[in-house]
This record gives sequence, structure tokens and C-alpha cells, in this order.
Amino acid sequence: MNTKEEVKAGIIIIGNEILSGRTQDTNVSHIAVVLNDWGITVAETRIIPDIESVIIDTVRHFSTLFEYVFTTGGIGPTHDDITAACVAKAFNRPLIEDPQIAKLIRSRPTSEEVMRSRLLMARVPEGSGLIDNPTGGPHGFFIENVYVMAGIPKVMQAMLSTLAGQLDGGHKVLSCSVTAYLGESQIATELGYLQNQFPDVDIGSYPFTRNGRYGTSIVIRSTNTDLLDTVLQEACKLIERSGGSPEDIHR
Amino acid sequence: MNTKEEVKAGIIIIGNEILSGRTQDTNVSHIAVVLNDWGITVAETRIIPDIESVIIDTVRHFSTLFEYVFTTGGIGPTHDDITAACVAKAFNRPLIEDPQIAKLIRSRPTSEEVMRSRLLMARVPEGSGLIDNPTGGPHGFFIENVYVMAGIPKVMQAMLSTLAGQLDGGHKVLSCSVTAYLGESQIATELGYLQNQFPDVDIGSYPFTRNGRYGTSIVIRSTNTDLLDTVLQEACKLIERSGGSPEDIHR
Repeated sequence: MNTKEEVKAGIIIIGNEILSGRTQDTNVSHIAVVLNDWGITVAETRIIPDIESVIIDTVRHFSTLFEYVFTTGGIGPTHDDITAACVAKAFNRPLIEDPQIAKLIRSRPTSEEVMRSRLLMARVPEGSGLIDNPTGGPHGFFIENVYVMAGIPKVMQAMLSTLAGQLDGGHKVLSCSVTAYLGESQIATELGYLQNQFPDVDIGSYPFTRNGRYGTSIVIRSTNTDLLDTVLQEACKLIERSGGSPEDIHR
Repeated sequence: MNTKEEVKAGIIIIGNEILSGRTQDTNVSHIAVVLNDWGITVAETRIIPDIESVIIDTVRHFSTLFEYVFTTGGIGPTHDDITAACVAKAFNRPLIEDPQIAKLIRSRPTSEEVMRSRLLMARVPEGSGLIDNPTGGPHGFFIENVYVMAGIPKVMQAMLSTLAGQLDGGHKVLSCSVTAYLGESQIATELGYLQNQFPDVDIGSYPFTRNGRYGTSIVIRSTNTDLLDTVLQEACKLIERSGGSPEDIHR
């Protein structure tokens, strides 16, 4: 694919509960699909623990590596919520109480102790912009090219949705796919030729088992619709030449 | 947690289909849970694209960083299956045809072209050991401390299961949890005190919404059963003091 057309993002999933396997992450795939729709390609994802030095290093590294960085997790009010403080340190900014978030939090009366905890969620690195939270809770924030969101999928999804139209995407990567109940080996050689013939298209081959049958999904990705159609037709032909039939064609 | 007792692993998920969001990964959580049972803690996970330089760099880096490294994906017979070649380059070894895998593949007759593709799955870095594949397909392999497995969850799980008893784990990290229908802010202060009181125990706080109600799961992790029990009791007490009731206690 022509990398000049690509705008790349990195995702940082922060949380011991994902690393330990206790919680099944679903944020990576959701963010990737939404960003792709905005013309932004996820180039790498890291799932890291709640350790200050690891968070700081990863945020700094990704911030220089990619056009956009998205983090999820660690922005609540408990002792293990250290994301805002770490992002502040990553950019050498003081952590301040954002007046807009603090006002929202103070609008809901509670005991002094609970309020003190809630106000921890108003802390952002100085100079941050806010990410709205349509679920009604405290905001996320962004600083430089790093967008910091909640870990709870529903809240993260709501926050991400508010960024629609605010990020500079490149040409949208379009994809189509075709499935065959053939082993990968049965189409591997021809598929390799096809990839060589169309170097600007990304052809992926993904084996699967479904109801005890082995099959292969061929996924074709490109920013160019015409190329996509051409390669899809060639893929269907090569499946037929290999003794299979093209099924489940998605454009 | 006492890091001397910890044996750490890194997971590398190789595949554009996971990064693009097209496929929901489940390998990370499965590997983490199995390794934890073997006394090995996943310290970091990276999801990376099918790009040679990225795979080589990540394998090298993780290999020096952690006691064990596990990769999934990219060991099939198609043009985008470059994991074996990349791992060989990461360790400066030639890629050779393993006689045992080749023998297994040759035992199932097929056309010359398909056989040539299948035999690509017999390639391993010189000096590798093999990882059995109970599903009947070609083996995975390991070299130095890097274990290379298939991407299809069923095949990966079968391969991983054959490593039981073969890896040197540390003290197993045990966990217990308790849930309360309280917001995190309502317990944040006391939970912070509890964490400070027991620095060798890892206390995590995970907010959730269930049927429209907000709640918090407290997860306590330690290699020491007595400590685990003590902290769990303290957590239950603090939930009660905060006006909630401890529910869903898992030991």
C-alpha cells in the first residue's frame, strides 16, 4: 500500500486486568474499525501493565512514531489509575485540575471524602483538550497527539465517537474479502503471484476452521476501489482454478 | 508483588487482521490464563503487523526483556506468513527445512505445487526445538526463549497445552476478587490505604456497568495465600464501611 496515503495510529491498552487474561479486551478491534473508517490505520497495539515507567516510555515512543495515539484505561479515581499522571510526565507537563471537569463533578453533591476521590478524575496534563463523555461521567483528554480515554468499553466507545470529524485521516483503506473451503496450501502459490502482481494492494490469507471444515479467507485491502475490484476478481478466479468455489464475498 | 518470585513473559500477536479490527483476538487472554497457571506472568503484549523489520525488532527486544516470549500467527504457507523467517533473522540463524515436520507433511500425498506450499511450513530457524501440534497439522517451534505458535485459536491452544510442565515458572500468582455495587470513588480512598498497607499484594479496582448499574470489582493478586485472604477480608470490610455489600467473592 502506498504509505504516503496512510495516516497511522498506535493503541495503548493500559491495565493489568487485560494482561492477566481476567478481562477479554474488545477495545482494540473497536478502535481499529472506527479509525479505519476515518482513514487512520492502526500500525501497532501494546497492552501494558499499570507501571509508571512503562506507561511513560510507551506513550513517548508511540507519540513520536505515529500521527495519533489512543490509550484506554487507568483514568478512574483509585490508586491504580495512574494514566493521567504518566501522560503528564511523558510530556513534562504539570498535572492540573481541569475547571470544566471539576465543575461537572462538583455539580453532583456527595460526601467530602467521595468528592475528593471523584475530583482525582479532573486531573489532566496542563494544556490538554477535553474529550467529551456522552455517558455523563468525567471527560477524557488529549495532549499533543495522544488521546486518553476510559477503559470501560461503553464509555470508551462513547468518547471515541465524539472525535468523529476532528482527526485528519488519510485515504480510507477499503477492504473486500472472499472465502473458500480450501486449505491455504492449495492457493498459496497463486496467491503469492497475485500479491507480486499488485504490490500496492495488501492481500491477506487467513485460515479458519468452521464446523470442522478448514477454509481460507482472502482479505484484500487498498485505498483504490478499482484495484480492489480487479484483485477480488482475480482471487475468485484463482479459487476456481484451485478447485474451490468463491463464497461469502464482501465488498 | 515480590518481583524476585516472578517469571515474566511477553506475547507477540502477529497479524494485520487483528490490528485492522477484522478479527477479535482471543489468544492474549488464553495464553495469559494458562501461563499464570504455570507461574508465569505476562508483562506485556504487542500486536504487530506482518512487516519484517517490526517482527524482527520486537522478537529481539522481547527475547532480552522477558524469560519467555510467545508469538502467534504467520506460520502458514502463504506469502504473508513470514514469522519463521523473521525469527530466524532475529537470531541470525539460517532458515532450514525441519526433517520431522517435512516427513509429516510428505506423509499426506497431494499435487507437486500444493506440496511445495505445504513444505514452507516445515521451515524453522536452525537449532529450533519443535512444539507438538495435537490438531495434526505442522508443528510450532521454539528457539532460545521464543515460542512460535499458530494464529488459529484452536491450533494455538493445542500447541500451548503441549508445553505444560516444560517451562520454568515461578511462584504462581493467586488471585481472588470481590464485587460491590458502589462507584469506584466511594471506595477509592480506603482502597488506596489498603494498597499502601500491603505493598506486596497487587490490588486492582475495575469499574463496570451491568444491567445499567455501576459497580466495582476489586481483584487481589499475590503469591501468598495468607496475605490474599487477609486483604480480601479487609476489602470486604471496607466495602461494608462504604455502605455496600461484598458480592461475588471468588477465591
